[in-house]
Amino acid sequence: MPLFSRLTDGSCRFAQIASIPVGYNNPALLAATKTTDMASALINRPALGNFPSHNWASILKSGLLRVAPKGLDQVFTSTTGSDANETAYKAAFMYYAQRQRGGPDVEFSSEDISSTMVNQAPGSPNYSIMSFTSAFHGRLFGSLSTTRSKAIHKLDIPAFDWPRAPFPQLKYPLDQFAAENAAEEKRCLEEVERLIKEFHNPVTAVVVEPVQSEGGDNHASTAFFQGLREITKRNNVLLIVDEVQTGVGATGKFWAHEHWNLSTPPDIVTFSKKAQAAGYYFGNPALRPNKPYRQFNTWMGDPARALIFRAIIEEIERLDLVRHTAQTGDYLFAGLERLAEKYPGQFNNLRGKGQGTFISWDSPQRDAVLKRGKEVGINIGGCGESAVRLRPMLVFQKHHADILLESLEKIVKS
Amino acid sequence: MPLFSRLTDGSCRFAQIASIPVGYNNPALLAATKTTDMASALINRPALGNFPSHNWASILKSGLLRVAPKGLDQVFTSTTGSDANETAYKAAFMYYAQRQRGGPDVEFSSEDISSTMVNQAPGSPNYSIMSFTSAFHGRLFGSLSTTRSKAIHKLDIPAFDWPRAPFPQLKYPLDQFAAENAAEEKRCLEEVERLIKEFHNPVTAVVVEPVQSEGGDNHASTAFFQGLREITKRNNVLLIVDEVQTGVGATGKFWAHEHWNLSTPPDIVTFSKKAQAAGYYFGNPALRPNKPYRQFNTWMGDPARALIFRAIIEEIERLDLVRHTAQTGDYLFAGLERLAEKYPGQFNNLRGKGQGTFISWDSPQRDAVLKRGKEVGINIGGCGESAVRLRPMLVFQKHHADILLESLEKIVKS
Repeated sequence: MPLFSRLTDGSCRFAQIASIPVGYNNPALLAATKTTDMASALINRPALGNFPSHNWASILKSGLLRVAPKGLDQVFTSTTGSDANETAYKAAFMYYAQRQRGGPDVEFSSEDISSTMVNQAPGSPNYSIMSFTSAFHGRLFGSLSTTRSKAIHKLDIPAFDWPRAPFPQLKYPLDQFAAENAAEEKRCLEEVERLIKEFHNPVTAVVVEPVQSEGGDNHASTAFFQGLREITKRNNVLLIVDEVQTGVGATGKFWAHEHWNLSTPPDIVTFSKKAQAAGYYFGNPALRPNKPYRQFNTWMGDPARALIFRAIIEEIERLDLVRHTAQTGDYLFAGLERLAEKYPGQFNNLRGKGQGTFISWDSPQRDAVLKRGKEVGINIGGCGESAVRLRPMLVFQKHHADILLESLEKIVKS
Repeated sequence: MPLFSRLTDGSCRFAQIASIPVGYNNPALLAATKTTDMASALINRPALGNFPSHNWASILKSGLLRVAPKGLDQVFTSTTGSDANETAYKAAFMYYAQRQRGGPDVEFSSEDISSTMVNQAPGSPNYSIMSFTSAFHGRLFGSLSTTRSKAIHKLDIPAFDWPRAPFPQLKYPLDQFAAENAAEEKRCLEEVERLIKEFHNPVTAVVVEPVQSEGGDNHASTAFFQGLREITKRNNVLLIVDEVQTGVGATGKFWAHEHWNLSTPPDIVTFSKKAQAAGYYFGNPALRPNKPYRQFNTWMGDPARALIFRAIIEEIERLDLVRHTAQTGDYLFAGLERLAEKYPGQFNNLRGKGQGTFISWDSPQRDAVLKRGKEVGINIGGCGESAVRLRPMLVFQKHHADILLESLEKIVKS
């Protein structure tokens, strides 16, 4: 397997923004490109909502649905992470409106119908999706309205008036700041509940990343996410977990939210990147639209990409890559802890312990470290203001971790 | 070549909602799936904005860009028609804001930066995109705000407060209603200009389909589109032509807006469906964002689909399918005119003359006709309230037209 995503053409890549799961030129994936199913998916691309190909159900059942998060046995496919989130938001809006209206069998009013054609309430209601400070959920108009990572992502683009709750800012090392961190998470959860109750545009769903990735690799505790699940349940608001970046094994679980041990599953889980396919999982049949053509588009995903995801799933299972990533992550984290101790001030707020290789820290000279990294043969990325984030593929091994640790030491020494 | 999109598995399809250009199981496309380039595109999917594969520029130059509309020599790729339109809208918003700000070198103000993080003006301005009654431009939040086809597409989904101009409602046959139609188009254009000048959320672009497809196959004259180009130019507003459904040959030109003989090209042309790839073309370099990461996402399209589009282009050229479609369309239209004369009231408002096979009419019993069609072996679709629309592939031939005409006669006789 190639090291640090070195491609055969010689270019080095940060795993294509965390979207390459099982290495470049993986032979098992290559084999999946050679099938008749793949050829047909590529040249006879179906409009899946109207005319699914005869094998579409079996592609879903033997692939996408086999790794569906516990409690979520249905999937709506789409093409990108932004699309996945936006179709999930649409599902949340329809579900909320349906409840307000009195159930799936209550017809739209004539006022609903006439007002929506001119983009006005009640047909086009001023409902909202709540997201968190520093969140990243995509770049189209609905998803961008929930993205709060950086101004450059949002400037000059109209946005919906949707609420933003504070995401906990934890202090590290966690064991030294247990009380402060618990208080911080409590404060954030209280604000979430206050906004749900008081925000002027009714909140239909809260969307959250298990680890805020573009926003700086910000983590929160299991207790925080359990609290979020309780608050959303109590207030009849959906919980959408955006696993576009965390999904498919990198945190040492197939889905990062499995770390939370929730008593009830999230309402919706979105995915893309390492899945190559995209979409959202859900468990509640009431989240299916009550009429045709409400949640619909021409392609509704791409079977070619769903076939690749199936091959990725098989490869992950064959090589036991989720467990492997958990172990390699623990090994790497321990090495980074040693470096942090040896070079004080260079590896600040080291985070991601027990989260596979989804590890990051703050660096006093982040951009210089990333640049120097390329000179010594490692291609790693940044996020937020000062974070160095690791996003190796699932085939990253202990001896790769050793090379990475040696290289990092070389950098901070120089 | 299969007739009326009969697939090898026996299912009949309406060309996958007009998205299959050169027939099912096309051998030239099949060959394109067998290349190393395709295998690599499928298993090593690049994050095109950061790490384009070594052959990406050549894939664009030898494919997508070779068929770029006249005057538009740049392309921004995406994954679906909705994405294509939304990224085009984002380009329009950034361009407008840049002009308001005083040029590409003027920095964002601190107020811009802080306000956009909470989705408020001035950073997230209340700018708008104007669309037309009955328009269809997609189903995500920005594109859906410009879609005005049917309430069921829009109900319960929040929308931006953007303006809707009237699309001309022409009377047929055109030569009998020349004066009325000219007056109707003048009325619509005047309303467009009034809204640009007066609408409370500044209009940055007008988006229009060459033929309103989902909305009922509504046509307008060349003079109307020329007028629209003049008004948008005069008012410094971009003209975005949505060729998601009309593009790639079906109207007897590669791009339907070529029929208009505009003195200056549209500012942006979007594409998807028959292209299999998606995105938008533009010619003005000032429409490129002035800073990195303003117009960006992880994948920015799919090279696998761009390779398929290149093979489609080559097949269209090899078989001269655009000219062929123009001729077949004329032949079919003449046949339909004969039927309309023979069966008064059955083929009303026959339209699409000189527009290749992009032909439609209103039927007094539309849904029954479509159902009956399947019984006699033809799979055709509807749009709007009462329109029957034809969307054959580009490989549709005169003898297919004969079968279609015979079948239609059989239906209306029964």
